[in-house]
Amino acid sequence: MQALVDRIQKDGNILNGDVLKVDAFITHQVDPVLMEEIAESFYQAFKEAGITKVVTIEASGIVPAVYTAQKFGVPMIYARKSKSLTMNEELLTTEVYSFTKQVTSTVSISRKFLSKEDKVLIIDDFLANGQAAKGLIELCRQADASVEGIGILIEKSFQPGRKLLEEIGVKVVSLARISSLENGKIAFIEGDA
Amino acid sequence: MQALVDRIQKDGNILNGDVLKVDAFITHQVDPVLMEEIAESFYQAFKEAGITKVVTIEASGIVPAVYTAQKFGVPMIYARKSKSLTMNEELLTTEVYSFTKQVTSTVSISRKFLSKEDKVLIIDDFLANGQAAKGLIELCRQADASVEGIGILIEKSFQPGRKLLEEIGVKVVSLARISSLENGKIAFIEGDA
Repeated sequence: MQALVDRIQKDGNILNGDVLKVDAFITHQVDPVLMEEIAESFYQAFKEAGITKVVTIEASGIVPAVYTAQKFGVPMIYARKSKSLTMNEELLTTEVYSFTKQVTSTVSISRKFLSKEDKVLIIDDFLANGQAAKGLIELCRQADASVEGIGILIEKSFQPGRKLLEEIGVKVVSLARISSLENGKIAFIEGDA
Repeated sequence: MQALVDRIQKDGNILNGDVLKVDAFITHQVDPVLMEEIAESFYQAFKEAGITKVVTIEASGIVPAVYTAQKFGVPMIYARKSKSLTMNEELLTTEVYSFTKQVTSTVSISRKFLSKEDKVLIIDDFLANGQAAKGLIELCRQADASVEGIGILIEKSFQPGRKLLEEIGVKVVSLARISSLENGKIAFIEGDA
C-alpha cells in the first residue's frame, strides 16, 4: 500500500538497528485518515471471506482493527493483556512471548464474543516473530471460530513471523513489507495490497 | 445521547453494586457504528473550540478518541501506561491512581506531540473519580497546551469526578450520565449531548 510505505519513509525512524519507530502516526500519535485508507485495503483483500468479527490485541492494533471492522459492518474485539475487573466470565486465554520485551504475557478474550459460527479477520500493526498473531489464532481456535486471514500494517520480512503463520495455514496480507533496516535505511519489498 | 443510553440499558450489566460492565460494545468488543455516532456528538459539542489534538489514555479510550479526532480532522494521541521500547525521547509524565484497581500507574506522552499551540480535547470512556482525566490534563499542562474540554462516554454522576474536573476549570461533556446503579437498576440523569 503506497500511502503507508510513503508515510513510513517520511515519518518512520530506525532505533537500535532493527526497531522501526512509527509513533508519529500509528503507535502513539495516530493519523485517522491513513487508518481509514489502511482499513479499505484490508476490506478489499478479504471482502469475499464472509468476515463476522475483527480481532486484535491491545493497544496499537485497536485503531486499524476498528476501522477495518467498520468496513465489514461487524464488531471488533481486542484481546486484553491484563485481566480486567469486569472480565468475570469464562475466558479464552493463551500466553504470548515478546522477543522484544523478553516477557510472556497472558492474553484473553471473553468466550461469549467468539463462537464456531465466526469467521475472523485478525489485524495487527506489526508482524515480526509472529507470536502475537499466533496467540490470537489460538484464542480463535479455542472458540472453534475459523480464522480467515491476518492483516498486518508493517511486516518485518527479515524476521520469521510470516513463515510461521503460513505454516499454520493462514493467509497473511501485509500492507508494507520491510526487507531490511540495515545501515539506517528502510528498504521495502512489494506489499500485498 | 439517546443511542448510547439505550445501548447501556440493553447491553450494560451491573457488577458488585457499583461497577458498570459495557464489554459488549465499548471496553472489549466494540461497535464501530455507535462509536462514530459518539464522535459526532463530541464534534457538535466542541466544534467551535479550535481543537488541534484529541488525547486519550490506552486502551478503552482509543476508539472513541480516534473517531472524534477524525471528525475534527486532527491527530489522536493516546497516553501510554507502560513505557514503550521506542519511547526514547523526552516524555510528559504523571501518576494516575485507580480507585478501582487500587494501583498507581505512570502515564506518558512524548513531548514532541504536544506544544503550547495545541488546543486539546480529552476523550475517555468512563468518568468516575476523575483521576485519569486529571492526569491527562496534567500532561497537557506540562506541554503548555490548553485543554478545551473533556468528552466522556459514561459518567458515574454519583462519584466525584465531574466536580473535580469542573473545579480545575475544564468543560466536561458526558454523553450518558448515570445517577445510580443501586438495586440492580441503571438510572440516568439527562446527558449533555
